[in-house]
Amino acid sequence: MSLAAVRNVRLLLAYDGTDYVGWQRQSNGVSIQALVEDALAPIESGPIAVVGAGRTDAGVHALGQVASVRLSSSIAPSALERALNARLPAAVRVRGVAAAPVDFHARFSATSKLYRYRIRQAPAVGPFEYRYAWHVPQLIDTQAMGAAARGLLGRHDFASFQASGSDVETTERTILDVRVEAANATGDGDEQGRLVTIEVEADGFLRHMVRVIAGTLVEVGLGRRSSADIGAALAARDRRRAGPTAPARGLFLVRVRYPRRTTE
Amino acid sequence: MSLAAVRNVRLLLAYDGTDYVGWQRQSNGVSIQALVEDALAPIESGPIAVVGAGRTDAGVHALGQVASVRLSSSIAPSALERALNARLPAAVRVRGVAAAPVDFHARFSATSKLYRYRIRQAPAVGPFEYRYAWHVPQLIDTQAMGAAARGLLGRHDFASFQASGSDVETTERTILDVRVEAANATGDGDEQGRLVTIEVEADGFLRHMVRVIAGTLVEVGLGRRSSADIGAALAARDRRRAGPTAPARGLFLVRVRYPRRTTE
Repeated sequence: MSLAAVRNVRLLLAYDGTDYVGWQRQSNGVSIQALVEDALAPIESGPIAVVGAGRTDAGVHALGQVASVRLSSSIAPSALERALNARLPAAVRVRGVAAAPVDFHARFSATSKLYRYRIRQAPAVGPFEYRYAWHVPQLIDTQAMGAAARGLLGRHDFASFQASGSDVETTERTILDVRVEAANATGDGDEQGRLVTIEVEADGFLRHMVRVIAGTLVEVGLGRRSSADIGAALAARDRRRAGPTAPARGLFLVRVRYPRRTTE
Repeated sequence: MSLAAVRNVRLLLAYDGTDYVGWQRQSNGVSIQALVEDALAPIESGPIAVVGAGRTDAGVHALGQVASVRLSSSIAPSALERALNARLPAAVRVRGVAAAPVDFHARFSATSKLYRYRIRQAPAVGPFEYRYAWHVPQLIDTQAMGAAARGLLGRHDFASFQASGSDVETTERTILDVRVEAANATGDGDEQGRLVTIEVEADGFLRHMVRVIAGTLVEVGLGRRSSADIGAALAARDRRRAGPTAPARGLFLVRVRYPRRTTE
């Protein structure tokens, strides 16, 4: 009996996080990780551990989550994609499967991740959008939000912008790009209003970091705090100095970047 | 004790029909009609009967359903809208409330209704779209579909294009406008493909009529039947001569038209 060669596979995933407890396997509900591992079970005989680039929280969505998994099965990438999509619920889709170098790790190999936060600024949010945006009825000053966001660029200690009680080695992260955009897009149901999006690209994220940034920037947009106040919030390294945590439903993991040559 | 004056109110509604048994109250699940009537119950002391312009089926959505209801409550339209939205689930939204003439009836007063059917023609349908489109993986010829659709324009007996077993006085209806459009719109998750929409405006619709039209036009688009075949299917007055009933999830009630002066 010969041992099958173990190979490393990279998955590109999109999912609607509404009905799930988040990426990571948990005892209190269905996670995306568990769904993907369970979908792999009939293909792979040994133990299966799927690693996700971003550990998205309950209710957070993904357009381009990346996962890695070591498989002994010799199934071709295209057949693996079909087999997974046949087993996964329609809310979770595999968008691509590729062979990856043996040392590729979806989380540790990532050089940056891009998250998008969607805000519907309108009197009401429609029935087709409420799962995918934070509803803010008041007018928000997106120019002021953009100015405040620029204060987050670069390497900072984001201890004020993480879920309180988090325990991580370092709370320093580098924000590579941050932008606030507003479009007079009508949503479903042709309701009036604007879609405000906050995009943040960083080398890594603390727990709830994008949601605290979104909550803080909306306070700036509402005139409850100044753009300059963001610097003071950062310097304080105290969760209480930043704004509220925006709801999970507006958050999307858009893209994960890796160094070149991470596919075989 | 004086009897409160009964007045007639017109509601504009949008809803995601995914989780409901359709517009009409039924014993086997939650209907939109029941949700609206139950939301009115704390406001109105007498019996409540909400009439919808279109009796959308289970899984069918609405951007602009219209409903009428007689109320003795003197609540102002804007307060009624807020009260209903506070009680309704987020999947059902009241987009407007207006006083209507005493003889206004959402269904019988309507002069036309516009339905939209959405088809995602792509290798896969994404997690944010599967509830709102029919997934057709094969390339479909939308020019041929448009030509076939034009054969439905005008007054015809649509007996071939209704749910079998329907019992209605007449199966004649007038299609006022029908169009097939294709856009190279990428869906969520940036998947490849086209969004094909079929819009049908008519003075009235038989049960499943738009879905049988969509199913038949897709057969034309796939080359399984010719454009000219539509005339023969109409003439046959036999459900078996038309195509399959397209899934409910792609269908949206977009707009209902009334004669002028149906708001006070």
